[in-house]
Amino acid sequence: MSISDEMRQLAEEAKKAGRIMASLSSGIKNDLLNQMASALESQSQELIDANENDLVAARQRELAPAMVDRLVLNEERIQSMADGLREVAALPDPVGEITGMSKRPNGIQVGRMRIPLGVIGIVYESRPNVTADAAGLCLKSGNAVILRGGSEAIHSNRAIGAILKQALTAMGLPAAALQVVDTTDRSAVLELLKLEELIDLIIPRGGEGLIRFVSENSRIPVIKHYKGVCHTFVDASADFDMAEKICINEKVQRPGVCNALETLLIHKDIAETFVPRIVAALRDNGVEVRGCTVTREFAPDIKAATEEDWGAEFLELILAVKVVDDLDEAADHINRYGSLHTETIVTRDYANSQRFLREINSSVVMVNASSRFSDGNQLGLGAEIGISTTKLHSFGPMGLEDLTTRKFIVLGDGQIRQ
Amino acid sequence: MSISDEMRQLAEEAKKAGRIMASLSSGIKNDLLNQMASALESQSQELIDANENDLVAARQRELAPAMVDRLVLNEERIQSMADGLREVAALPDPVGEITGMSKRPNGIQVGRMRIPLGVIGIVYESRPNVTADAAGLCLKSGNAVILRGGSEAIHSNRAIGAILKQALTAMGLPAAALQVVDTTDRSAVLELLKLEELIDLIIPRGGEGLIRFVSENSRIPVIKHYKGVCHTFVDASADFDMAEKICINEKVQRPGVCNALETLLIHKDIAETFVPRIVAALRDNGVEVRGCTVTREFAPDIKAATEEDWGAEFLELILAVKVVDDLDEAADHINRYGSLHTETIVTRDYANSQRFLREINSSVVMVNASSRFSDGNQLGLGAEIGISTTKLHSFGPMGLEDLTTRKFIVLGDGQIRQ
Repeated sequence: MSISDEMRQLAEEAKKAGRIMASLSSGIKNDLLNQMASALESQSQELIDANENDLVAARQRELAPAMVDRLVLNEERIQSMADGLREVAALPDPVGEITGMSKRPNGIQVGRMRIPLGVIGIVYESRPNVTADAAGLCLKSGNAVILRGGSEAIHSNRAIGAILKQALTAMGLPAAALQVVDTTDRSAVLELLKLEELIDLIIPRGGEGLIRFVSENSRIPVIKHYKGVCHTFVDASADFDMAEKICINEKVQRPGVCNALETLLIHKDIAETFVPRIVAALRDNGVEVRGCTVTREFAPDIKAATEEDWGAEFLELILAVKVVDDLDEAADHINRYGSLHTETIVTRDYANSQRFLREINSSVVMVNASSRFSDGNQLGLGAEIGISTTKLHSFGPMGLEDLTTRKFIVLGDGQIRQ
Repeated sequence: MSISDEMRQLAEEAKKAGRIMASLSSGIKNDLLNQMASALESQSQELIDANENDLVAARQRELAPAMVDRLVLNEERIQSMADGLREVAALPDPVGEITGMSKRPNGIQVGRMRIPLGVIGIVYESRPNVTADAAGLCLKSGNAVILRGGSEAIHSNRAIGAILKQALTAMGLPAAALQVVDTTDRSAVLELLKLEELIDLIIPRGGEGLIRFVSENSRIPVIKHYKGVCHTFVDASADFDMAEKICINEKVQRPGVCNALETLLIHKDIAETFVPRIVAALRDNGVEVRGCTVTREFAPDIKAATEEDWGAEFLELILAVKVVDDLDEAADHINRYGSLHTETIVTRDYANSQRFLREINSSVVMVNASSRFSDGNQLGLGAEIGISTTKLHSFGPMGLEDLTTRKFIVLGDGQIRQ
């Protein structure tokens, strides 16, 4: 069978299985996820053995140590996959919720019922835990899922997929609801991306190259985020202690993630006092600061920021700092260089807090809180399938609800249109 | 300037203007729409004169009379555009609504605020009234809009656009928030569809050819529906009077629209009595019936349905009729041949009504009501920008809310992540 036929068949089976998944009660779906968790635990040795094949190949191909580390499955990481599945099992089920039921003048009742999307395709790299995490979220929300991991993790992903499928089969549910693409041929992705009548949504997870490849080649809607260039604006009225604590947390706690701070904007009225203070604090925390001309007036020993530093996603202990005239200039800078991920204002001014909340249209906008809270778990979604910095369907961290849609339901007693 | 540069400049201006539109109060937006309505009324003669250019060209090109009719602007149609704008002005403004505000364990408050999408592109054919209707909905929801009508209506669309822009300018608002693409070159559409960093959503309105062209060539998310193949299932327990009344309304009231009935499914237990009755009623209303083998046993003088008749969008007084064993077979048939638009069950059985509502995942699912209610106005949205039969972002008739998205807002008092 050609790869094209193979992908089509796999997606057709997923679609059929998706109809069954869509009709399951929450109880059954929760049992399924809990059984998957137990199966991963009880077969951890098989997983570790399969993973060893990937690790051997990775070392032969001389992958970077950080890449190899991401590939590793050990008892602790398997436990964490199992725990993740149990956490998702414990979350409320969005499917079936009916909202806005109201009566029209002619007596028909109209509302909306939340339903699964159908078939979700996940295209990802490296970390084999995504296989279990994504499967849990997609199945809990009543969808079928097609998982296409990287070739470097193929043995691990295959083994995780086989164990999870056993749990489906053991419960009399269709194993086809969970498909692990069993080829490392890159054309398989291209074939999947053409199947717009079978797959409802594609979520790419990985580096910018992967995400661009998927979104440029897909006929299916893609939810994506390329990068997180987060800004914090320290307003003239900010509490300096709070501002310092927040900025340090945002930049230092975990610099390699997308909700870390990349550019700090400081109101000109406080530049003389706040710039030296924050630069010193950042330096104490090992951060390299790159400043605009005004910033460097008050902290002469830092490097000058280049045009490339604005809008850069450093993902390491480097921070660009700019002094701005006011909230308007801060907003203009964010509009020009931001990535619609997360922006924060530190202020004591009521009007400015409200303006920032209204006028900054990034996916997460914060007042007096660390950008590090910008993830699904911290924002209360429970677990996260990804994050969207495009506005269609979902904007920001995505949880179970984002894997569903709403249909209209109409209850009549014989009404016809006049 | 090349068409590519021209489209980019127009979209950049729209994006900039969109930021201003996003921050307007509902009152100002309502005033704007009301002023647009008055301007259309007071300049109706200019519109009729401009329209005459399109009509002359259409007759020279020997367009079909139905096409020419759709092009016509007269006092009545201009009044109807103005009324439409005033109705949209009177609808509630979705922008700024905050929902789900709740406190996390660490004290941050997290909720979602509804915001405009940014820039909406509408690609449409023939009817010049779309220019005013779409502009009203996009501007009321705080977006900028780029309108690309068909070449056959270019003079009319240009004139409507100029009048609506005057209203923006008169209120001190950016005229660039409303862009009418002023070239009939088809490559302009292709160029617009590439501008994914400037345009947030494309809505094609027109024939299936246009919609396929747009969705196959767009890097921007597209919301679309190709066709409406609506099914009604008359269950064994149905009230025959009600079933007949509903079916006739669905098929006959306006056969040329997407929410008209195209296939009628009848439970086998009532075929002997209901088939002759409904076939006679349909015939009395001028409908040609094409039946399956079983249907023709009870109505021998009707034509046999061919495989092509299942799934056909007749858009005229033709109806395919099939006798099915039960709700399962009805659901299978709908899954196979349906278009995810609107499906109806006529039943007195509680369990079957609930199963149909849950298991049929079309964008509108009805019990004991006519499919003709499947439009935005009838379902309570007030006005409709289009209908989506794909599940991402919106599913079903789309109103003002569907031209918005939600961002997360976080209110803290200095919280950082531990």
